[in-house]
Amino acid sequence: MRRSIATVSLSGTLEEKLTAAAQVGFDGVEIFESDLINCASSPAELRARAADLGLRIELYQPFRDAEGVGPEQFAANLRRARAKFALMAELGVDTLLACSNVSPTARCDDDLSTNQLYRLADLAGDYGVRIAYEALAWGRHVDDYRHAWRLVAAADHPRLGVCLDSFHILSRGHDPAGIREIPGDKIFFLQLADAPLLLMDVLQWSRHYRCFPGQGSFDLAGFLGHVLAAGYRGPLSLEVFNDVFRQADAERTATDAMRSLIALQNSLVASQNSLIAFQKQLEPAPDLDGYAFVEIGVDPLGEIVAERMLGGLGFTRVGRHRTKPVHLWEHGSARILLNRTRLNRTRPARDDWQRGDAAVTAVAVESRDPGRSARRAAALLAPAVPRRYGPGEADLTAISAPDGTSVFFCRSEPTAGSWLGDFESLPPVPAHSFITGVDHVALSQPSHYFDEAALFYQSVLGLRHDDPVEIADPYGLVRSRAVTGARGAVRLVLNVPALGGGPSPESAEFQHIAFACTDIFVAVEAVRAAGIPLLPIPANYYADLAARVDLDEAAIAAMRSCHVLYDRTDEGEFYHFYTAMLGRRMFFEMVQRVTGYDGYGTPNTPVRMASQYRHTAMAGLD
Amino acid sequence: MRRSIATVSLSGTLEEKLTAAAQVGFDGVEIFESDLINCASSPAELRARAADLGLRIELYQPFRDAEGVGPEQFAANLRRARAKFALMAELGVDTLLACSNVSPTARCDDDLSTNQLYRLADLAGDYGVRIAYEALAWGRHVDDYRHAWRLVAAADHPRLGVCLDSFHILSRGHDPAGIREIPGDKIFFLQLADAPLLLMDVLQWSRHYRCFPGQGSFDLAGFLGHVLAAGYRGPLSLEVFNDVFRQADAERTATDAMRSLIALQNSLVASQNSLIAFQKQLEPAPDLDGYAFVEIGVDPLGEIVAERMLGGLGFTRVGRHRTKPVHLWEHGSARILLNRTRLNRTRPARDDWQRGDAAVTAVAVESRDPGRSARRAAALLAPAVPRRYGPGEADLTAISAPDGTSVFFCRSEPTAGSWLGDFESLPPVPAHSFITGVDHVALSQPSHYFDEAALFYQSVLGLRHDDPVEIADPYGLVRSRAVTGARGAVRLVLNVPALGGGPSPESAEFQHIAFACTDIFVAVEAVRAAGIPLLPIPANYYADLAARVDLDEAAIAAMRSCHVLYDRTDEGEFYHFYTAMLGRRMFFEMVQRVTGYDGYGTPNTPVRMASQYRHTAMAGLD
Repeated sequence: MRRSIATVSLSGTLEEKLTAAAQVGFDGVEIFESDLINCASSPAELRARAADLGLRIELYQPFRDAEGVGPEQFAANLRRARAKFALMAELGVDTLLACSNVSPTARCDDDLSTNQLYRLADLAGDYGVRIAYEALAWGRHVDDYRHAWRLVAAADHPRLGVCLDSFHILSRGHDPAGIREIPGDKIFFLQLADAPLLLMDVLQWSRHYRCFPGQGSFDLAGFLGHVLAAGYRGPLSLEVFNDVFRQADAERTATDAMRSLIALQNSLVASQNSLIAFQKQLEPAPDLDGYAFVEIGVDPLGEIVAERMLGGLGFTRVGRHRTKPVHLWEHGSARILLNRTRLNRTRPARDDWQRGDAAVTAVAVESRDPGRSARRAAALLAPAVPRRYGPGEADLTAISAPDGTSVFFCRSEPTAGSWLGDFESLPPVPAHSFITGVDHVALSQPSHYFDEAALFYQSVLGLRHDDPVEIADPYGLVRSRAVTGARGAVRLVLNVPALGGGPSPESAEFQHIAFACTDIFVAVEAVRAAGIPLLPIPANYYADLAARVDLDEAAIAAMRSCHVLYDRTDEGEFYHFYTAMLGRRMFFEMVQRVTGYDGYGTPNTPVRMASQYRHTAMAGLD
Repeated sequence: MRRSIATVSLSGTLEEKLTAAAQVGFDGVEIFESDLINCASSPAELRARAADLGLRIELYQPFRDAEGVGPEQFAANLRRARAKFALMAELGVDTLLACSNVSPTARCDDDLSTNQLYRLADLAGDYGVRIAYEALAWGRHVDDYRHAWRLVAAADHPRLGVCLDSFHILSRGHDPAGIREIPGDKIFFLQLADAPLLLMDVLQWSRHYRCFPGQGSFDLAGFLGHVLAAGYRGPLSLEVFNDVFRQADAERTATDAMRSLIALQNSLVASQNSLIAFQKQLEPAPDLDGYAFVEIGVDPLGEIVAERMLGGLGFTRVGRHRTKPVHLWEHGSARILLNRTRLNRTRPARDDWQRGDAAVTAVAVESRDPGRSARRAAALLAPAVPRRYGPGEADLTAISAPDGTSVFFCRSEPTAGSWLGDFESLPPVPAHSFITGVDHVALSQPSHYFDEAALFYQSVLGLRHDDPVEIADPYGLVRSRAVTGARGAVRLVLNVPALGGGPSPESAEFQHIAFACTDIFVAVEAVRAAGIPLLPIPANYYADLAARVDLDEAAIAAMRSCHVLYDRTDEGEFYHFYTAMLGRRMFFEMVQRVTGYDGYGTPNTPVRMASQYRHTAMAGLD
C-alpha cells in the first residue's frame, strides 16, 4: 500500500515538506490548503516538483462547511468549489477532502446535506475530481463516521465517498468495527493519527496533541485491520497536528513518521495475519536477556572519580580493551565500560561538558540474535553508528538513538567473535556479590524528542512503554516514561523537561544507572564502607513515611540512617538509595525489588531531585 | 487584609520560596507538604526562618482523603493526622487544609463524612489546630463548595470550617453567590487562582494551567466580593499550579503574583465600593490618547536603513535631541524616535544582535496625567528605568516592562517641560499626509513571559486584553494576544512562541509598528514610489481570496498588484500591507480600518510569516 503524509504533519514551507517526505521514502502527500496559499510556487510548479521528487499528490484538503447550509451559502460554496477544482486540476490531484459542517448555523437536515453532497460531487465530476466526505469529531451535526457514511450512501454518487480519520473516530470512542460495513471502494481516503488519552475538548486535542501511530494510546492496528477488511486499498496517510512537529526539523519528523508506519504495518501483520502484502516485512524483535553492558564516557578526571565509585559499588576491573582506552568493569552480571574517548561525540544536545563530567554514551542489550536485531533496526530507519575496529576485534553492530546514545546488540558468550574477546583479562581480584545486574538505565532526552525516543526504543528493541508521568523537580516538571522488555529484563527510563524553553530543571538532564541487589542494607553498608558518599535524604521524608505507612519504627530508623527510600504498591515493595553525583549529570542508584514490584520508586523522585540540588550546592563548600 | 501565597506557586526549594515571597511583600505563605518533605530544614528551623523574614505560615496543606472512608482507613487517617498536627505545632501553623476524598473507594455517605470530619476536628483541637475542609472540583462525592459547607455545618465543631478556592468553584461553573450564606467566621481560608477557559479534564486544568488573577478568564473580583460580603477577613492566598511558574525565577513570579493581587483588590474597590480598607489603594489609570512616540533602537548601519524606510513611509525628520544621538521623525500624528544608543541595553532575551538590526526599545503613551500614570505603575511594582537627562531637559518617567521595553508616560504639548522641548527643530521639509497615526505596536516576548506581560501592560496602562490566539508560522505556532485601550487609542500586540524549547519560529521574535492610513492604495503607491520594497504576497493568496469572498475581480487584481491583504468581519473591513524587513527582526505595516473593524488581520498572518522567510532568503541572493 502507498504511504502518504499530510503536509501539515511536517515543519517548513511546502517545498521543504515535499522534500522531506520524499527523502524518507513516502509515496505521496496530502496538501493542506494553507500550505499552498502561503506558498509562492504556482500549482503547476508544485505539481512538477512533486513529480520530480517521485511523490504523488494524493489529496487536497480541507473543504469546509460544504453541506447543511442555506441556498445562498450553497451557491457560494459551489463557486468556491469550482475555483478549488480548477486548482486541483493544475495541481494534478483528484481527491478533495470535504469535512462535515462545524458552523453553529449548520442545519440539522440529512436530506439537505445528502442533496448538497450529491450536487457537489456532480460538479466535481466535471473536473475529474472526487469528494471524500469526513465526519469531524466536532462536526455540528455530523460527528460520527457512520452518519457520514449514511449521507454518502444516500447520495449514491460515484464521485462521492468517505474519508476515515482514526483520530475523529477513536477520540469519540466510536466502534471502528462498523467500518467493515462500508464497501472498500467507497472509502476514498484513510488518515491515521494516534493521540495520548487526554480528557479535553476534542478540537484542541486534535489540533495540538495528535502523534504518530505507536506514540499515543489508540489501537491503530485494530483500526487499520477494520479498514483493510472493508477492502480499502488506497494510501495510508498520516495526518498529525502536533505542536512539537511544527517546529522540529522536517526530515527528522518524516523519519519518525515513516518508522511509525512501518511498525504499525508490521504489528498488523503480526496480530492479524493480514490479507495485505506490505512492502517491508519487519523481522520480529529477538528476545532480550538484559543488558550486556552500559558504557560511560569520561574524561581523564571523570575516569578517576568513576573508577573510585565503581570500586566502591563492588565492581572489579576485569578487562582492558586491546586497542582503545576502554576498561571493562564487572559485578555480578552487571558490566560497565569506562571509555575515555567517547564523550562529546554522540550527544548533540550537550555542548557544555565540563571537566569531570560523565555520561552514558552507549547501552548494549543481550539479544538472542544480534544480527536479526540489527536488520530490524535498519528496517526501522535507525541510523548505524560507523565504528572502527582492529584486526580480530568483534564487529559489533551499533545504531544511534534519537538522543545520541549508541545501542549495541550483543551476545556475551565466551566464543570466538564475542565482544568480550576484545578485552585482555586483568589479574583477578576478590569479587563482591551484592549486585545482581543492571536494573534500569535512565536517559535524558533533548527537549521535544520524547515521543520520537519512546517510539524508537520501543519499536527497535521490541519493548512496551508505560504511560508518561510528570515529576515535580523544585525548578520545573520533568516528564518521564519507562520502556520495558519482557520479564523486565531490559528497562529504560526516558526523561525530558515537561516544558521546553526557559531555564529547565537540571534533573531532566541527569542520567543514571540503577543496579539490582537482593539486600539493600547489605549493599548500603558495603558502599558506605568503601567511602562512597550517598545522597542524603531529609529527615522530613522519614517523618512523612512513618505517618503514612505502617512500618515499625525500627525499620524506618534503619532506612533513615542509611538514606534508603521506600515505595510500596499492591504488587510489592521497593527499596533504593542513590550515590552522590559523578560529574554534574550522572549518578548511580541501587534498588531492591520485593515480590512483583514493577515500578521505579517514582513517588520518591522529587525527594531525590531536591536533595541533589542541595547536595551539589553543599559540595561547593568542601 | 493579609496577602499570602502558596509555596507551590513559586519555583525552587522551600527556603528560596520563602525568601521570594517575603522580598515582594507577602505577609504569609501556605506550605505545601511536598515542599516540606523535600526540604532539609527541620520544621522548627523553617518556623524561625519564616519569622525572620516577617512571614506568617498561614496554612499547611493538603491532608488528603480524610473523610468518607472505612473504619480501618479512618484509624490510619487519625494516626497520620496526629503526626501532621505535631509537625504543625513545630512549624507554628494552626490551619490544616483537608480536601474532599478523591478515591474511587470513597463512600457516598454524608453522615459518615460529617462524623469523621467532626472527629478529625476534635483531635485537631488537642493540638491547637483547626481544619479547613475544601471541596476539590474532582472530589469523588464532594465536589461543590455548598456540599462541603453542608458537611461542615452539620458537624458543627468550632475547629472545623471550609476553605474556598476560586478555581474549584468557578471551573465547575458553580454560582459563587452562595458563599454569602456561609458565616464569615466559618470560612477558615481563601485561595485565589484564575485560569484560561479550557475545555479539559478539570484535574489537569487545575494542575497545569492555573494563573494569577487577571491572567485568565474567571471573574475573580466578583468571586472575592461574595467572600468579603460573607464576612471573611482572613488572608487572600494565591494557590497557582502552573508549569511556567514552576521553572521561572521565584522572585519574578512573586512580583507577578503580588501585582495581580494589588490589581484584583483595586478592581474590587472600583467595582464594589467594598467594605474593606486595602493597604494600597491604586490611583485609577488615566485615559490614554494614543502613542506619543515609538522609539526604535538602531546601530549606525540600521540607522541608515531605518531613515530610508521612514522617509519612504512619508516621515520627516523634524527634530534632533539636544544631548543624545536621537532624532524625531513625524508623519501625521505618528512620531518615531530613532535612537542610536539604546540597542542592547534593555532586552534581556536578545544577546544575538547583528549589524543592521533594529528593535522597538520604547513606547510612549499620551497620558492625561503622566504623574498619576507613573505612580500607579510604581504601586503595581513596575520597575523604574533610571534615566539621565541634561539641564533643562524633560524629566520623563519611564518604567521597564517584563520584555525589557521602556514605557514612557507623556503629554505631548508644546509647553515648558514637554519632552518635545528636548529636540531642536530641524528645517521644515514638505510633509506627507497619508498616515494618520500609530495603529498598533507588536512586541515579541521572551518565551514564558506571556501571561506576566499581558497582566503587566493591562494593569499598568489600564488596558483590556483579548483572548490569546494561535497562529501557524511555517516553523511553529506563535501565540498572540492584543491589549487595547479605550477607543482603540492604544493597541499593543504581544507575541510569543506557543511552545518553548526547540528551534522556535523566528517570526515570534519579530516586532513591528503598524501605521494607520485612510486610503491603503494611496499609501501603497507613495511607499512604492519612494522605492521601499514591500513584502510580496503570493498569487495563491489572491486565488483563495477570490474563491471565498465576493469582491469583484478588479478589486482583487488591485490588491494583488499592490501586495495588499484583506480581512472582513461583521464589524467592518481591513486592508493592510507590509514592508520588507528592517534588520532581521523588525518591519512596518500599513493598515486601513473600514467602519468598526477591531482586529489585526490575524487570518492573514500566516501568509505574512511564510513570505517573510522567503523574502529574507531571497534577499540573500541580492
